[in-house]
Amino acid sequence: MNRVYNFSPGPSMLPDAVLEKARDSLLNWNNTGMSVMEISHRGKDFAAVAQSFEGRLRRLLAIPENYRVLYLSGGATGQFAAVALNLGRPGKHAEYLISGQWGKKAVAEAAQFTDVRTVADTFAQLRAPVAEDINLSGEASYVHYTHNETIIGVEYQTVPETGAVPLVGDFSSTLLSRPVPISRYGAIYACTQKNIGAAGTAVVIVREDLIKDKPKAVPSIFDWTVQDGQQSMYNTPATFNWYLSELVLEWIEDQGGLEVMAEHNQAKASALYDYIDDSQWYRNPIDKQSRSWMNVPFTLPDDSLDARFLGEAEQAGLANLKGHRSIGGMRASIYNSMPMAGVQALIDFMRDFAQRNG
Amino acid sequence: MNRVYNFSPGPSMLPDAVLEKARDSLLNWNNTGMSVMEISHRGKDFAAVAQSFEGRLRRLLAIPENYRVLYLSGGATGQFAAVALNLGRPGKHAEYLISGQWGKKAVAEAAQFTDVRTVADTFAQLRAPVAEDINLSGEASYVHYTHNETIIGVEYQTVPETGAVPLVGDFSSTLLSRPVPISRYGAIYACTQKNIGAAGTAVVIVREDLIKDKPKAVPSIFDWTVQDGQQSMYNTPATFNWYLSELVLEWIEDQGGLEVMAEHNQAKASALYDYIDDSQWYRNPIDKQSRSWMNVPFTLPDDSLDARFLGEAEQAGLANLKGHRSIGGMRASIYNSMPMAGVQALIDFMRDFAQRNG
Repeated sequence: MNRVYNFSPGPSMLPDAVLEKARDSLLNWNNTGMSVMEISHRGKDFAAVAQSFEGRLRRLLAIPENYRVLYLSGGATGQFAAVALNLGRPGKHAEYLISGQWGKKAVAEAAQFTDVRTVADTFAQLRAPVAEDINLSGEASYVHYTHNETIIGVEYQTVPETGAVPLVGDFSSTLLSRPVPISRYGAIYACTQKNIGAAGTAVVIVREDLIKDKPKAVPSIFDWTVQDGQQSMYNTPATFNWYLSELVLEWIEDQGGLEVMAEHNQAKASALYDYIDDSQWYRNPIDKQSRSWMNVPFTLPDDSLDARFLGEAEQAGLANLKGHRSIGGMRASIYNSMPMAGVQALIDFMRDFAQRNG
Repeated sequence: MNRVYNFSPGPSMLPDAVLEKARDSLLNWNNTGMSVMEISHRGKDFAAVAQSFEGRLRRLLAIPENYRVLYLSGGATGQFAAVALNLGRPGKHAEYLISGQWGKKAVAEAAQFTDVRTVADTFAQLRAPVAEDINLSGEASYVHYTHNETIIGVEYQTVPETGAVPLVGDFSSTLLSRPVPISRYGAIYACTQKNIGAAGTAVVIVREDLIKDKPKAVPSIFDWTVQDGQQSMYNTPATFNWYLSELVLEWIEDQGGLEVMAEHNQAKASALYDYIDDSQWYRNPIDKQSRSWMNVPFTLPDDSLDARFLGEAEQAGLANLKGHRSIGGMRASIYNSMPMAGVQALIDFMRDFAQRNG
């Protein structure tokens, strides 16, 4: 079987060029006679990978000098805890904005470690909060939001305004999909299995004044202060993931950078939403101002057609379109690696399926 | 350059057969048209990988029914915290045996989360504690020890006796190198980058009665109760690592299992220690009753020869022999994947080098 168009929400599609490079050097990387996953993270060969990763990330996102970059084990769920453990402060509470399931999970995890208050919740309205929805105290240790809700496909169009309180953004499904005004944030984090590589790791970008002091009682692998002091190598890092992420950043730079990715992603999403809306057969229920560029859930008029849709889509080389188990229906995840040709193939299939079953 | 003999302490050498399988399916795994790292951890294809991993591990180690198997993000340093967070008990202390640097690191990490007492310390004597060295109270929440100290190469030859108190073993560098009497332990854990796969993850084997109740305030990715209830998929796991580990277990079963690995490893270690002792030129300072099968540190008579030794070894296809930065000298890590031919090539090189420089 040839490569398929893979609409998986994560772990998700990677660029062929990245996988081919990884494959071709899997037993002998950089003429070392070893795989990149067999070498020490403390040697000069791997140090070059880590440095190149950081350099590319800083260039792509125009990260200011006073922000630190970390590459850590454990994905976004690990960082749900790490945010509270590193940025929570005794006697202060943290404020969370909710627009879907992941924001709620972030609250539940953080509440183990700090006093948490929900200051906006637009989940039921299927849209992202706007200024009028948000009730900030101005006294919080930090304000947290989920830039894109991967399950329902709800995305913020603007950066929440938090004044002097550090804003923390979960960019798990959107980091590297477009430019981000980093200086508006205290910290940004993202798991790697959407736009940054393979599963099991996370990228953190944090303003250096927020991690001056080592927090108390934090597992060291999640301690941003400790990890920053050790170039994210306090513990043995997930070296193969880090290497893959470096290849992904190289690929993004080869594509022309984040302005180009943004145009590309907006064009793909627009094509798919336009088709869904025009079809009057498929349906996406999300408020048009909050629709995600990355995850496009949609339903058929009758869910008894779902299994046939999924089976025929798979036959047509369109994989992993099943919606999240919590809401059913379909979901097309169209991250950076998904080409417009994949989205067009999906639209063609959807049109044909609707004609045959409408 | 051809594949070299890689003596790296971890990340470390993997079997060619494992890397070749991973390479050949990197863009199209199991005829899915996708890489294994691009598919959902919740789909049936990946579930089969996870189940096969657990089945093989249970067969290889003869794990009793009342033990649970977890595959978690974050390596052994993550588990240093997880052990204390999951097995520490309010009003009780934990007892630690020290025989090297990793035991001390485990103490420092655990002390963030529970009351810790060191009840044996033979680090300075370069040997593992024996019964007379150990001063247990019988009142601890658990007793922890490091089965093999990777940096200095000190290994226990017997299982410490802890009565009714659960014994926890850090088997980071030895799990799968030989049979283990699992029922003697409350829990065993190991990072994956020595004998089990790539870096960034850990295997935990824990007696089920110890994780009946969810502990308080534990990052969920480290919460053994939560992860056990979710087949180690509370968060998105490091799927590629897990897959690689499954291939490593397959390879070990193909070799004949852990009795065969034990013979193989003991033979390699004996050959190298015998040569070092006989040479009267190289030196290993570790007590003979405590010498590691996995990590063999040695020194030259004059450390001004170290750089030449390392340079010529590398030219001879013998890589990563430099000792840990904290103690200098050389270290040959000879995990499962290192063939006897690699150890013999090292001995031949050492003999030749000694003759030319002695």
